[in-house]
Amino acid sequence: MRGALLYGPRDVRVEDRDRPTIVEPTDAIIRLVAACVCGSDLWPYRGVDSYGEPAPMGHEYVGIVDEVGDQVTTIRPGQFVVGSFIASDNTCEICRAGYQTSCVNRQPGAATGAQAEYTRVPLADGTLVATPSMPDDDLVPSLLAASDVLGTGWFGAVAAQVGPGKAVAVVGDGAVGLLGVLAAKHLGAEQIIAMSRHNPRQELAREWGASDVVVERGDEGVARIKELTGGLGAHSVIEAVGTQESMMQAIGATRPGGHVGYVGVAHDVALPGKELFFSHVHLHGGPAPVRRYLPDLIDLIWDRRIDPGRVFDLELPLDDAAEAYRAMDERRAIKALLRP
Amino acid sequence: MRGALLYGPRDVRVEDRDRPTIVEPTDAIIRLVAACVCGSDLWPYRGVDSYGEPAPMGHEYVGIVDEVGDQVTTIRPGQFVVGSFIASDNTCEICRAGYQTSCVNRQPGAATGAQAEYTRVPLADGTLVATPSMPDDDLVPSLLAASDVLGTGWFGAVAAQVGPGKAVAVVGDGAVGLLGVLAAKHLGAEQIIAMSRHNPRQELAREWGASDVVVERGDEGVARIKELTGGLGAHSVIEAVGTQESMMQAIGATRPGGHVGYVGVAHDVALPGKELFFSHVHLHGGPAPVRRYLPDLIDLIWDRRIDPGRVFDLELPLDDAAEAYRAMDERRAIKALLRP
Repeated sequence: MRGALLYGPRDVRVEDRDRPTIVEPTDAIIRLVAACVCGSDLWPYRGVDSYGEPAPMGHEYVGIVDEVGDQVTTIRPGQFVVGSFIASDNTCEICRAGYQTSCVNRQPGAATGAQAEYTRVPLADGTLVATPSMPDDDLVPSLLAASDVLGTGWFGAVAAQVGPGKAVAVVGDGAVGLLGVLAAKHLGAEQIIAMSRHNPRQELAREWGASDVVVERGDEGVARIKELTGGLGAHSVIEAVGTQESMMQAIGATRPGGHVGYVGVAHDVALPGKELFFSHVHLHGGPAPVRRYLPDLIDLIWDRRIDPGRVFDLELPLDDAAEAYRAMDERRAIKALLRP
Repeated sequence: MRGALLYGPRDVRVEDRDRPTIVEPTDAIIRLVAACVCGSDLWPYRGVDSYGEPAPMGHEYVGIVDEVGDQVTTIRPGQFVVGSFIASDNTCEICRAGYQTSCVNRQPGAATGAQAEYTRVPLADGTLVATPSMPDDDLVPSLLAASDVLGTGWFGAVAAQVGPGKAVAVVGDGAVGLLGVLAAKHLGAEQIIAMSRHNPRQELAREWGASDVVVERGDEGVARIKELTGGLGAHSVIEAVGTQESMMQAIGATRPGGHVGYVGVAHDVALPGKELFFSHVHLHGGPAPVRRYLPDLIDLIWDRRIDPGRVFDLELPLDDAAEAYRAMDERRAIKALLRP
């Protein structure tokens, strides 16, 4: 089969690789219908993180179940399924509390990489969610979005306690930030302030429910959010970048007693204790337990009540994965979808 | 009048000072019945913080209203009142959300220092809470505790989402940590693990509801808490110290999805973003909005349902304030009460 490998900084190649096979009796093999490039894939792509090259890439996927192990009981070959980046048993105490990405038996969700024709998914019963039937092709991008970026934006909004009557700010205009706007709107936010300086992203944010757009960053960005929220700051801030500047911007833009939901993977971030202490904010985040939200998100997409697939503004064949990475790295694309 | 001043590291003197007078029409002058030395007073006492010496000291107080400004409407001379370390209007949006220590009009609660015969309290109507009548003398220590350490421990427990069925750990065995144990018990915690290596403190923790005592610290302390909570960590951890080690201990001892309530004033703390991200904990804390809890806490004390005054294991006349500081600094006393 064909599959993408990262050989080193900015060196992605699609090559012939062995088709994955069942390893554990709880595994499933999925024939991928669509996969994509994640903002977090850009960290190793840029050489900031290293996965030990050559590394199979991709952890967002939808596809058709090809084969299951002997102990898989609810997932069946032929089903169209949505997975996510962490495989979880969905039965342990941590999963039952809604934190499947910290499952006591967690494993990578696409063990052999999802930017490929096939991938192996561990703990298939706990990890995969089947759609009601075979989806119309135009729903595929939205279902693919549910597998990571939508679920992550959603968790950011829930962690930030977004709800009716709340003023919400979103730091970051990548796919996750934009889908944080969509989630905030769906969860009933009264005011949604998107922080973005890129025109097509601002437009999508507005279409999904942003009432205001702030182009300023850092202290100026914080001052602007305060201005827009009666001088107090937002009730809820979704942080979807993961840098020191974006975290401090999120904390600074939140009113005392308000909530920061942070879903940008924190890189070289050190939060100053005293500033955090006196900010009086609630801080919650981490790797989004996408599995918690998948059943509901699939329903919303199936009923065409949300259209998160619009976040994909570039679609390429799997063999052009290198161009997909380049386009996202250079911010020419918000998010690239790959069809095997 | 007599009042304590900090002249420099480990140099507290009680001297004749001017009796405070009404400055703003919203002020009250309180004749103090009792005051005390706070764990946070030890930071400037040890020279870690500087307030600009000589500094009037003390911010925990109960007393009798002596005089009020023209615009004070609910507080009247002759009332016995409990205040706290921040004066708040109790009417702004932040106060109404329960964060009086971040009130948009906040000021120091005992403007002229509470380790004195009299003090000036700004925003008297929003800050002070009167008792139903003149308290019996044996209730005075408990009412004094409500003014800071009890309210702070209580906020720590609430911020850590302590409740029925929860396993709770408390980092810190100072007055605030011990009162965090008392609060956790009152809020229905199922298991309460006190981290303490000091015998009299362990005993008080057990009397107030601790089911387990852990003497280990750092990684060993975290491992012990996990052992006591089915390998997962506590649902709720109250952090009542404010150092890098204690914060990391609290975060490490909390299960994914659990809550850290931190009320130790953070000194030289920098929280590593990646570790926090993958810990999946909720983090909330800051200067406790004691005013939020004062009415309920006064009721509980008045009805003799809680006895937080036991945290005072040393009582001295105001003139011996220097010895009160020394005893706390050397950890000979948990908390020292001063009678003017």
